[in-house]
Amino acid sequence: MAAAYARRMSTDASRAPYTDSAAGAAVKAADRAHVFHSWSAQGLIDPLAVAGAEGAYFWDYDGNRYLDLTSGLVFTNIGYQHPVVVAAIQEQAGKLATFAPAFAVEARSEAARLIAERTPGDLDKIFFTNGGAEAVENAVRMARLHTGRHKVLSAYRSYHGATATAINLTGDPRRWASDTGSAGVVRFWAPFLYRSPFYAQTEAEECARALQHLEDTLAFEGPATVAAVVLETIPGTAGIMTPPPGYLAGVREICDRHGIVFVLDEVMAGFGRTGKWFAADHHGVVPDLMTFAKGVNSGYVPLGGVAISAEIAATFDTRPYPGGLTYSGHPLACAAAVATINVMEDEKIVEGAAHLGERVLGPGLRELAGRHPSVGEVRGLGAFWALELVRDRETREPLVPYNATGEANGPMAAFGAACKKNGLWPFINMNRTHVVPACNITEAEAKEGLAALDTALSVADEYTV
Amino acid sequence: MAAAYARRMSTDASRAPYTDSAAGAAVKAADRAHVFHSWSAQGLIDPLAVAGAEGAYFWDYDGNRYLDLTSGLVFTNIGYQHPVVVAAIQEQAGKLATFAPAFAVEARSEAARLIAERTPGDLDKIFFTNGGAEAVENAVRMARLHTGRHKVLSAYRSYHGATATAINLTGDPRRWASDTGSAGVVRFWAPFLYRSPFYAQTEAEECARALQHLEDTLAFEGPATVAAVVLETIPGTAGIMTPPPGYLAGVREICDRHGIVFVLDEVMAGFGRTGKWFAADHHGVVPDLMTFAKGVNSGYVPLGGVAISAEIAATFDTRPYPGGLTYSGHPLACAAAVATINVMEDEKIVEGAAHLGERVLGPGLRELAGRHPSVGEVRGLGAFWALELVRDRETREPLVPYNATGEANGPMAAFGAACKKNGLWPFINMNRTHVVPACNITEAEAKEGLAALDTALSVADEYTV
Ligand SMILES: Cc1ncc(COP(=O)(O)O)c(C=O)c1O
Ligand SMILES: Cc1ncc(COP(=O)(O)O)c(C=O)c1O
Repeated sequence: MAAAYARRMSTDASRAPYTDSAAGAAVKAADRAHVFHSWSAQGLIDPLAVAGAEGAYFWDYDGNRYLDLTSGLVFTNIGYQHPVVVAAIQEQAGKLATFAPAFAVEARSEAARLIAERTPGDLDKIFFTNGGAEAVENAVRMARLHTGRHKVLSAYRSYHGATATAINLTGDPRRWASDTGSAGVVRFWAPFLYRSPFYAQTEAEECARALQHLEDTLAFEGPATVAAVVLETIPGTAGIMTPPPGYLAGVREICDRHGIVFVLDEVMAGFGRTGKWFAADHHGVVPDLMTFAKGVNSGYVPLGGVAISAEIAATFDTRPYPGGLTYSGHPLACAAAVATINVMEDEKIVEGAAHLGERVLGPGLRELAGRHPSVGEVRGLGAFWALELVRDRETREPLVPYNATGEANGPMAAFGAACKKNGLWPFINMNRTHVVPACNITEAEAKEGLAALDTALSVADEYTV
Repeated sequence: MAAAYARRMSTDASRAPYTDSAAGAAVKAADRAHVFHSWSAQGLIDPLAVAGAEGAYFWDYDGNRYLDLTSGLVFTNIGYQHPVVVAAIQEQAGKLATFAPAFAVEARSEAARLIAERTPGDLDKIFFTNGGAEAVENAVRMARLHTGRHKVLSAYRSYHGATATAINLTGDPRRWASDTGSAGVVRFWAPFLYRSPFYAQTEAEECARALQHLEDTLAFEGPATVAAVVLETIPGTAGIMTPPPGYLAGVREICDRHGIVFVLDEVMAGFGRTGKWFAADHHGVVPDLMTFAKGVNSGYVPLGGVAISAEIAATFDTRPYPGGLTYSGHPLACAAAVATINVMEDEKIVEGAAHLGERVLGPGLRELAGRHPSVGEVRGLGAFWALELVRDRETREPLVPYNATGEANGPMAAFGAACKKNGLWPFINMNRTHVVPACNITEAEAKEGLAALDTALSVADEYTV
């Protein structure tokens, strides 16, 4: 390509297909020299240099465009570069980009009001953080101080973030290296019929046994020593396992009976992802504390938080809340939340996600499962779906072993490569692929994704027995 | 005021004096209904509603303008609303507001490169977080995994953030309520001649005894069990105690001798605050890990991080680093960092801070101390100063007891009220007031601040013996 052409193109990364390989190489070189990446062996990764993104797509510097089935890390619920939210960020930047947390600031007040209006029940006070882990840290602190108890129960097959309390609550291998035996963390098993820890055959049986297991665990831990039970309403990265009907209501009842704070982590499942504002809304359950992040402003500016019940908020009415952070209620992040929530209302994005799940992704993924022996189960709702890939549908043996790396992970790596070859950026975790695009993806885009998955699943099929 | 006039004014909150009391009341009402504030008894606070800010000033909705001697929470090192950084945020928002951490993105690469160019020694890899606490969490994780050891030593009179590890490392009362006895955290005493824990009379004596104390503490803890020593290069909120010459070099030598990772927390002291890029530069010391946040982009978008030595980075070359966060290397935050660092270079803000300390604030504050019996000590450098307010210069009895509240804190409350009455927003912590304005405050603004302090110190003087 002529240098002049490359130069001209480089001024317009906002359009795809986009080609400026030299610019991409420079971005990549500086990345490799200076950026230390999350969850990675720094010498073994080869990060794709991304030039631009819009809606459900992003593109690199070499003319490749990808349909993003990950929506980042499941956070761009309204897609990339929504013009209304971009404009709101630009406006707030020009007005008051930042201000310290001890003050009342318009964007902060308005974001809190809009969030509180949408959270279930009386979760009407909002403590803002920068992301999900800090939200979980603060929810646990609130629960401990509110109850005067120390233990916290969380589930295997969960992710709650990577700061000390959050990672110790986490029930996946990302915890292992950082598991310093955080005092008072107890893990139990949540329901998951497809791989039932309780040998259950039906949803109702799984629900009853999972509740009994929680009761039993509490009995042996001493319920009066337990500050909180922390659950993802629908475990996200761990596999999008919608709890059986009655489970969350059952946990609510158990918590009430023992004076335990019920914390629902909606960092991934909240803000429209499931086709309702919050996943808890599907279950008619109101937790005492609800953590959020990601979808609250589609990740355009770092923001998370805890929605707090009236009762717990009252604990800190005259007693100072002993927690905080420099950027609590950051005006730019809050302005992005205000715009995002308004856009979600105006464009009916929550209703759209529900429709997408019911009419497009659900039927489409089940249709794929019917044809691909590698698909053991399809589960999910809204824009929140998981395919469990297996070697054998009968035994449900995962396509790759738990936490496999290198060669053992070959089949999933091959599946992932096939997705990318077909213009699809997949979300892959262990033996699962998640279909978690922007909630406002069009039907045509979703179908494009399903078609690419179809091709990639044929590669996975080759590894079945 | 006529409603029409108020309405017209309300469209221009970007200018002071600004008056729209109705708008301010609405912001405040929504705040009181829905915003849960850091470190506060929610029912006892009365947050000021802020309408706008520029440079070293901010203003409310009632026509009051304040000279901000706090620069937020010591983060707006370049002042509020710097037009170059605002424009860079607006541009990046329009281009690519957000993208997941596993990719190479121009703003992320460039921010890492600019930071690595300025950090001391071989701290050339940057792990980005959203703020200071997460930076400390990750530094400790890196140190533990690099050494295979578990214990971490930190100092009394320190603040490292409010997530579990960070708050347990913290040596101030903000830890108490959250102190769950985090496994492996050991606290020791750092040097502070004015209130010497070691009965020292001179800087040299304080230094030698503080090093001996650290040696002794390590000997009794078992140096081979210690992963890291974590210190604020210059403790910030705890009182801006510049360590005596040789102390940090001594700690460096002790760490080297025992194979301990030396972590310097420059979240508050870094990025120009002290008149050098990093406070460590004053001491010719290179830590193994350095945490930063705040000044890196003046807090315009939440950002923090860890600068990592080549040796520690190499530990995670083929072994995955088991930590991460959704917004690591957030493009909007990184673009703000790029613009901020470039502005600091272009406008010589770091040099300006040095000049401000040497020529204006240092002499000015010492002159005040000469006239006000309530000032026990003036210490600091650059745009980073503390006045120790005392009842009695002879005994050094603090103007209020350690961690005083309510009536016991009366004298400091009266001092604070006098500052605000004189158009100055003060930084107050226990018996100290810190003078920590934007690093690029003009000489005239600094003198305005000194004059207001002069008046307020007369109020403090009334409480001396
Ligand atoms: C359910 C859940 N909780 C907490 C977190 C942590 O959020 P963050 O990465 O913003 O700290 C995540 C991140 O994926 C999550 O999915
Ligand atoms: C030295 C130091 N470290 C860490 C922190 C925590 O930073 P953050 O509030 O961004 O989590 C602070 C905050 O004031 C600090 O001053």
